[in-house]
Amino acid sequence: MAQLYHFPLSPFCRKVRLSLAEKRIEVKLEDERYWEQSVEFLRRNPAGKVPVLRIDGKMLTESAAICEYLEEVYPEPALMPKDPDGRYEVRRLVAWFDDKFHNEVTSKLLYERVNKKVMGRGFPDSGNVKSGARAIKYHLDYMAWLLDHRRWLAGDVMTLADFAAAAHLSSLDYISDVDWNRSELVKDWYAKIKSRPAFRSILADQIPGFPPPPHYADLDF
Amino acid sequence: MAQLYHFPLSPFCRKVRLSLAEKRIEVKLEDERYWEQSVEFLRRNPAGKVPVLRIDGKMLTESAAICEYLEEVYPEPALMPKDPDGRYEVRRLVAWFDDKFHNEVTSKLLYERVNKKVMGRGFPDSGNVKSGARAIKYHLDYMAWLLDHRRWLAGDVMTLADFAAAAHLSSLDYISDVDWNRSELVKDWYAKIKSRPAFRSILADQIPGFPPPPHYADLDF
Repeated sequence: MAQLYHFPLSPFCRKVRLSLAEKRIEVKLEDERYWEQSVEFLRRNPAGKVPVLRIDGKMLTESAAICEYLEEVYPEPALMPKDPDGRYEVRRLVAWFDDKFHNEVTSKLLYERVNKKVMGRGFPDSGNVKSGARAIKYHLDYMAWLLDHRRWLAGDVMTLADFAAAAHLSSLDYISDVDWNRSELVKDWYAKIKSRPAFRSILADQIPGFPPPPHYADLDF
Repeated sequence: MAQLYHFPLSPFCRKVRLSLAEKRIEVKLEDERYWEQSVEFLRRNPAGKVPVLRIDGKMLTESAAICEYLEEVYPEPALMPKDPDGRYEVRRLVAWFDDKFHNEVTSKLLYERVNKKVMGRGFPDSGNVKSGARAIKYHLDYMAWLLDHRRWLAGDVMTLADFAAAAHLSSLDYISDVDWNRSELVKDWYAKIKSRPAFRSILADQIPGFPPPPHYADLDF
């Protein structure tokens, strides 16, 4: 069986978990305290990051490269369109969330409030938290603008772009940092993706010391 | 003709320039002062980053998504292998350089020494410069280890992974921050890639106030 070394609230790991689950690839999850950079873990991934996926007798790293690999080797159901323009738009949006959204929002809210404490690296920096809380509004508005033109973020079908976005937002929702009242379109989109069977394991996540709010796993939030 | 909005020393722009040149796609380069975040530029790319490529009547952003698009629409010469394992390895290494190497080295050396001054954001932080100078050694050793097993970074043929790595190293070489004596294997690899016609425009770059050292454009460095 495939094995995923992960950290439950990591959006990069969640994106891979969603891809695996949507493609019905069974996987055993192993919590990884990657920040301790143990020799054993660095042997699995010299980059020292999660996710690390053991599959098909190989050890794969880098979430975007893993998702493209899964798409090529386990093509059903497809999480990327077939045409180059559609594929470009998926990849652009995955990068938008994993780079820009991550730098401006996830690293400023989730990492300050949760990761720092879990890793024993002190208290949240309030300047960062304020900046993240400001930036997420702009990103939710951008998503609402996309969803006003399209059924899903990258077009008319659900793709990896939706999983990348849902991975970040679900991790932030675990700490109640998403204002779902800001946009009906974004809320409806999240309700659709949240109700998929692939999302169940994510809604069941529990971080010791950080109980999720009741709305987190509620499909009618 | 295609048009690329870029910053000459940006490794992300250089990776795209190398792909375009290797595929013999003519492009007009437009210097972009992206850090000023002009309204006109943000209209081209709401993410506010370079490169932005105008091609085939579209405006494309995110260097990795651009390179995958070019690979799909202009497949010759191929810069990715055909098999999923080979493609995975290329994508893993592109992410290694554009994420890990960028965070640990490029942002600590190039951005401190050049970008800060060009953008009028003060003086280099000596702690960052020291940390970058330390980290590049480890990365050169990792490259040497790969090249001891393979002709090119991702395998037996030249790929986007080599362009990603050469994009970062060439920008750092412009400010003499690469110790080519550290590894004969890495030096030979760089000599091979540097001598390609696709590299010419990069070797001709000039940043006002930062003249390149004589070895920068020398094929026999």
